Amino acid sequence: MTEVPLLYTCARSRGFRATWAAEEAGIEIELKLLPFPPRFQAPEYLEINPLGTVPMLVDGEARMTESCAIAHYLATKCGYTDLAIAPGEPDYAAYCDFTYHADATITFPQTVYMRFALFEKDKGWEEAGHAYAKWFWKRLVKLEQRLETRDYLCADRFTVADICCGYALVLAERVGLDEGVPDSLKAYRDRLKAREGFRRAWDRESAGPGAI
Amino acid sequence: MTEVPLLYTCARSRGFRATWAAEEAGIEIELKLLPFPPRFQAPEYLEINPLGTVPMLVDGEARMTESCAIAHYLATKCGYTDLAIAPGEPDYAAYCDFTYHADATITFPQTVYMRFALFEKDKGWEEAGHAYAKWFWKRLVKLEQRLETRDYLCADRFTVADICCGYALVLAERVGLDEGVPDSLKAYRDRLKAREGFRRAWDRESAGPGAI
Repeated sequence: MTEVPLLYTCARSRGFRATWAAEEAGIEIELKLLPFPPRFQAPEYLEINPLGTVPMLVDGEARMTESCAIAHYLATKCGYTDLAIAPGEPDYAAYCDFTYHADATITFPQTVYMRFALFEKDKGWEEAGHAYAKWFWKRLVKLEQRLETRDYLCADRFTVADICCGYALVLAERVGLDEGVPDSLKAYRDRLKAREGFRRAWDRESAGPGAI
Repeated sequence: MTEVPLLYTCARSRGFRATWAAEEAGIEIELKLLPFPPRFQAPEYLEINPLGTVPMLVDGEARMTESCAIAHYLATKCGYTDLAIAPGEPDYAAYCDFTYHADATITFPQTVYMRFALFEKDKGWEEAGHAYAKWFWKRLVKLEQRLETRDYLCADRFTVADICCGYALVLAERVGLDEGVPDSLKAYRDRLKAREGFRRAWDRESAGPGAI
């Protein structure tokens, strides 16, 4: 009997990439939805994941804490599916690049903004948070240029690269960062949100405690 | 005739991951070393890479800007080498996870620290920078636990996961963030720095203009 992978996450957090990838890949996972932020709201979680971050995927012996890595892993663990792009395939370089770009360049400035301009406003660093909102908007140029002539980021099909980068745009809408998001990327986000896999994942997470 | 990939980078920046991976993989690349930060010191670079970030790898039609993606790509573009871990191999999940962890969780707080506490001190957000120094140190727990019983992060051998995470530790030493780095991770960093591939890559970048 194969164990079902268990995903600890908070609804609508970056862990959504994993929930979404599982739905798109048709892979069964169990969801354990935690209140946000778990390091304060569910301190017992720190024993399972000392980082205190979400998501965390438990799959056999494996413990993964990076949402983009989990999404890519679910799409490749039993061999490459159409959701991922394998070495040698067209757009392999772009696929690698955009799956890392999503967090390393696009989502991190959003988290700095959220910390300083939303969650810890009382510390007096709100302006520093807004500096990272601008940083985020400027860094969208790569996605924007790439999607000028494409519906999806890589290989003319929906892949984990769209899940990784698309989530950053979904987050922007939810945390008040849509002002600097170009219309073309809003249209791309709408295409992604209209997918059945997205809807199923969204509904699944709706059963959990307070979302971001 | 196969074109040699061209890497635009600044010496000792995150692009070092790519230079290092190329040396370890025995892949020929051409280095184009730029002064730091290129968006001010080499504005013509913005025409090639509108993000203004380094590194950027040009390989045929491909344009990659994420250092961890480039390192992984170089180790897999002609099929999986020993520097990477393929689906189905032991520690595949950990390999994916740590290559993303390096920037998304470990290096990003370093860059916020560098911006607010080093480069833009005059803006009055120095304390906000130091808050991210603490954030960085706390997030090292995953690397620390993983390396308690291992010399390398995955599969008992040196891989791109070590290049990605190891660089974050090299950066810590260079930007004054070593205070909170545990001794075990300093010893790991020393092991990595002693590698011939590391030395060759380091020396290669030394030929360039001002390093970070």
